[in-house]
Amino acid sequence: MSRFQVTFLPYNTSIEVAAGQSVIRAAMEAGVHINASCGGDGGCGKCRVMIEQGQVEGGISEHLSQEDRDKGYRLACQAHVNEAVTIRIPVESAIDTSALLRQSPRQTARIKQMDLDDIKEQGLFAPPMEKLYLELPPPSAGDNLPDISRLVNYLRIRHEERGLEISLPVIRKIPSVFREQDFKVTVTVARPVRPSGKNQIINVEPGDTTDSNYAVAMDIGTTTIYGQVVDLGTGEVLAEAGKFNGQISYGEDVISRIMFAEKPEGLETIHQVVIETVNQVLAKIIKQSKVARECISLLTLAGNTTMTQLLLKVEPRYIRRSPYVPASRIYPHIKACDLGIDLDDHVTALVYPQVSSYVGGDIVAGVMGSGMYRTEKMTLFLDIGTNAEVVIGNRDWMACAACSAGPAFEGGGIEFGMRAAKGAIEDFSIDPETLEPMIVTIGNVRPKGICGSGLITMVAILFEMGVINNQGKFDRDLGTDRIRKTKDIWEYVLAYKDETQIDRDIVINEIDIENLIRAKGAIYSGCMTLLAEVGMGPDDIEQIILAGGFGSYVDLEKAMVIGLLPEIDAGRVNYVGNASLLGARMSALTNRIREEVVGVTNMMTNFELSETPSYMDNYVAALFLPHTDVDRFPKVKTQMEARRQALVDLRLSASDSN
Amino acid sequence: MSRFQVTFLPYNTSIEVAAGQSVIRAAMEAGVHINASCGGDGGCGKCRVMIEQGQVEGGISEHLSQEDRDKGYRLACQAHVNEAVTIRIPVESAIDTSALLRQSPRQTARIKQMDLDDIKEQGLFAPPMEKLYLELPPPSAGDNLPDISRLVNYLRIRHEERGLEISLPVIRKIPSVFREQDFKVTVTVARPVRPSGKNQIINVEPGDTTDSNYAVAMDIGTTTIYGQVVDLGTGEVLAEAGKFNGQISYGEDVISRIMFAEKPEGLETIHQVVIETVNQVLAKIIKQSKVARECISLLTLAGNTTMTQLLLKVEPRYIRRSPYVPASRIYPHIKACDLGIDLDDHVTALVYPQVSSYVGGDIVAGVMGSGMYRTEKMTLFLDIGTNAEVVIGNRDWMACAACSAGPAFEGGGIEFGMRAAKGAIEDFSIDPETLEPMIVTIGNVRPKGICGSGLITMVAILFEMGVINNQGKFDRDLGTDRIRKTKDIWEYVLAYKDETQIDRDIVINEIDIENLIRAKGAIYSGCMTLLAEVGMGPDDIEQIILAGGFGSYVDLEKAMVIGLLPEIDAGRVNYVGNASLLGARMSALTNRIREEVVGVTNMMTNFELSETPSYMDNYVAALFLPHTDVDRFPKVKTQMEARRQALVDLRLSASDSN
Repeated sequence: MSRFQVTFLPYNTSIEVAAGQSVIRAAMEAGVHINASCGGDGGCGKCRVMIEQGQVEGGISEHLSQEDRDKGYRLACQAHVNEAVTIRIPVESAIDTSALLRQSPRQTARIKQMDLDDIKEQGLFAPPMEKLYLELPPPSAGDNLPDISRLVNYLRIRHEERGLEISLPVIRKIPSVFREQDFKVTVTVARPVRPSGKNQIINVEPGDTTDSNYAVAMDIGTTTIYGQVVDLGTGEVLAEAGKFNGQISYGEDVISRIMFAEKPEGLETIHQVVIETVNQVLAKIIKQSKVARECISLLTLAGNTTMTQLLLKVEPRYIRRSPYVPASRIYPHIKACDLGIDLDDHVTALVYPQVSSYVGGDIVAGVMGSGMYRTEKMTLFLDIGTNAEVVIGNRDWMACAACSAGPAFEGGGIEFGMRAAKGAIEDFSIDPETLEPMIVTIGNVRPKGICGSGLITMVAILFEMGVINNQGKFDRDLGTDRIRKTKDIWEYVLAYKDETQIDRDIVINEIDIENLIRAKGAIYSGCMTLLAEVGMGPDDIEQIILAGGFGSYVDLEKAMVIGLLPEIDAGRVNYVGNASLLGARMSALTNRIREEVVGVTNMMTNFELSETPSYMDNYVAALFLPHTDVDRFPKVKTQMEARRQALVDLRLSASDSN
Repeated sequence: MSRFQVTFLPYNTSIEVAAGQSVIRAAMEAGVHINASCGGDGGCGKCRVMIEQGQVEGGISEHLSQEDRDKGYRLACQAHVNEAVTIRIPVESAIDTSALLRQSPRQTARIKQMDLDDIKEQGLFAPPMEKLYLELPPPSAGDNLPDISRLVNYLRIRHEERGLEISLPVIRKIPSVFREQDFKVTVTVARPVRPSGKNQIINVEPGDTTDSNYAVAMDIGTTTIYGQVVDLGTGEVLAEAGKFNGQISYGEDVISRIMFAEKPEGLETIHQVVIETVNQVLAKIIKQSKVARECISLLTLAGNTTMTQLLLKVEPRYIRRSPYVPASRIYPHIKACDLGIDLDDHVTALVYPQVSSYVGGDIVAGVMGSGMYRTEKMTLFLDIGTNAEVVIGNRDWMACAACSAGPAFEGGGIEFGMRAAKGAIEDFSIDPETLEPMIVTIGNVRPKGICGSGLITMVAILFEMGVINNQGKFDRDLGTDRIRKTKDIWEYVLAYKDETQIDRDIVINEIDIENLIRAKGAIYSGCMTLLAEVGMGPDDIEQIILAGGFGSYVDLEKAMVIGLLPEIDAGRVNYVGNASLLGARMSALTNRIREEVVGVTNMMTNFELSETPSYMDNYVAALFLPHTDVDRFPKVKTQMEARRQALVDLRLSASDSN
């Protein structure tokens, strides 16, 4: 895709964007503020900009008079970049606020996905299910061995296969399948992870079907269940889809699900519900991929400990009771159909092992899928979802812990919090002088609420601009109507009701900010406690791997400004997306990696933060922006000092000019 | 039990019998003829004998006048031995027929059952399922391993257990069972047959239940399903029962069952039916044994190839079609409940492997259970049931074959044939002069028909007494009403209708005899063909092991007289009864023997007699009494010559005296 340079005046800030990008998003990326309250749907008409060189596509609106249009004014949210352009932002004040603008463009984590070619080159591509086409000699009077003996002997002699096992359902199929195409058959062999293991013949089909061999990889999330259809011949993903976990109606988090499961018939009910969602996702991706259901021979699953136990219908009540004991670390191979999953009865389900009650198979999958278990680099792996889990270590050792971060990052406990869906404010900036906001929503529609990554940016910028202090309290003396007290709670108005979809003012208030601070404090202090337990400090971290729902949208600099992440060069942060799904897919593609899963799981030393005395001290110290001890964030500290001085100057000159 | 000597005059023949034995059975045993037609219920009053010394119990009947009673006359079938007695048989003719009496008392095979003590002494007592009582340390904040890890670690450290596997259903039970009696539990471990195999934890129970560990051994016969409850602690059988296989209503033999299974839904139906019988037998023996159903941890099964495939619902159609291919030799471990068997879901079913379409798991079980696979002695193993199977060999090699003997030995194709049940004529003798019969029935009731062992004795005696010739045809000139022609078929009347339960004359006719000759010819020629194939002859046989429904009742001498068995010292013939059930029980008691099952099965070389050219010649030669070549039966030949001379003398003097 072509990319074009956009230069913003009067700041003379340039950025390169992809063709078709809206001007307002280009500005946001560049750290250039343009007043905008309607989320990008052209409704407020505030984001007027003047095109000085080049042309943009669109941006003409009834909010602009013919005269303005002729002068080159356009609405930034409606205008799209299709060539190099120079754009002037009308500055309402003459004061130079450039010092207050972001120093660097928005930085998100580099997305690191699975590199199939690399896996193949390393000789790691070895799916657990292999299909072999065989032309067996038909029986005769002089050779009337049982069908199974015929098959096993042939495989032993012609294919040097050893340690073969065949289950009764496959034996039941064999007599008729063998005779359907005159003893020409395709067998599906489940390969063991260790050479000493058994090779199980899990299916037999007439004729040659070796080019139709598929797996389904699934992430059983507390909120969402994602699935992929994977071609075991090529390793490619043929389809992917997700659906909300139907268990949501029984509780948002794992604790409430466990509590439901403790009721009479509760476990059976909540187990059935998740299986139903699994089957819906399956139906969706199978349809999408156009693969025949009977050609799927493998299902790989990853989920947290509670989700795994509910999926497998294993009593979860001891997970939530001290001393927090899960049922099992490792689960055996299971027949997918035995769980009620709509797959043929030969399909094996492989379930990722768990470390502890709150560090589950999704995290193990992430550690495997992200390659953390193979790297020499000292790594901080952080999965922020409904809960947050931390893993520190590298290929030699690993320590892990779960943080009760609460649901703030997913919109829980935030008055206008919402999931990252259409209408969620995902990016934010503020005019340092007028304190007018610039908001951009997912889907460029009028705002409905604030998603996790938007919230982080918002709190960071409010803090950077001195609108809130390091305890998250608003400066009561800034002289703007946007900061106000409603029902005894101070708040900042992001969008007035006529600019929203919900006919109410959308605000961020001090309780929201406090909840975010608690959440980031829990995660940061979790990381610090864990580091301290293994005798290390934040400086020892060589890379961060971010996983989870919102990871790719988070502005890393902002995450460091609020003290969610330790300060590190943004280039050393990788985002792996849904690590659980990634790990599940990895399992479907390579026995070489599966082979190491149990070893890695056993290597992951679990720390119960609630049992670690220093955790509470670390937590309390982290309930500030960015932290009680700002020296832990030297870059933030330097920027903050520079900005604070600029703000003082700005506000002084503003009061002068009044 | 006390035994007493009974001496019969005028023959001066003595025999020792158990206290309570009836005089008529004692006479039968001793080879002394007493006319008797009512089967032993006292109805015909013919069996008058005089007690000369000592006293018998009972025997007084309305058929005897007071005068006779006073003289010491009693009815032999109603009189019982309770001390040493001398009994005179009233001889209707003065001619001395002693030369025509049997030389030796009735000889049945020695019953050889499993010797538990011997198994234990040899260190072979090692049931596949073992219970271990464990007192696990309960979890704490400092030790909150998953339940399964706690268990596995404890077993590894305290019990040196390795290679443990736990299935999902057991994992599901563990969290609550562990906490029921404060982490004091009993686990049931399924031991592998090879030390390198996996130890599977198949069950977990609260508290100490190590003294309640049971197995069920079952023989899935075409006609009857037998089961035993076995105590895995002691090896003792606690209960045993059998029931007719419900599949009988779909056909008497395996071929008709397969044909039914080929109909739409036929396999499902006939599978369900056998499972139903299995469940009925189970209910019966569990009730009998007073064992709690949930304390049964193992089910061992043996059956012929067709019965095994129907039990496991495996398509049997290719068993009955040339080239006679069964589905599998070996079947994996199966969960009993997966077959619909009413046992707890942790119960493993072990199924005996098959050799070929017509040498099945029942025969392998017999070879194992009888110890044939361990002996140095060259052995002929013969299982005569609905079909007949032959195994020749010893611990170094074995050859086997199935003979299509037909159902004559079970009463099929015999006009008054019946199974060995109450009212079946089981023993027979004939007065050499008057040709009047002496019959004894099972249960000492009026006769209803003839069972297999009775038929063999009958044909042998008719042949010995010159009533039939070596082709089984009656001597038409013997001048007795008992030999007659009805609807063009010659027959001998065993009992007139007023002496029977069925209000019809019970006869044995030439077609019956021909069917028996065909059946014995098939078996004998099967043995001979197999011997020839391995380069041996009947003289090489050092012992015979008889198995099957009627084996213990067969008079061995008579079986040799008709040429069913090769001539051998009767002391070298052992009867193991239901060898299939014996082998199933053996499997339940010792992994050491199970370990060798697959090797033994693979060692058993199968011969398809229908594909062996010499079989038909051997068969035709065997369609005589005892055989075309009487020199193969030297003892029979000598006796026959002596008897024939005696008969000629007898009949000459009889005609003289007339």
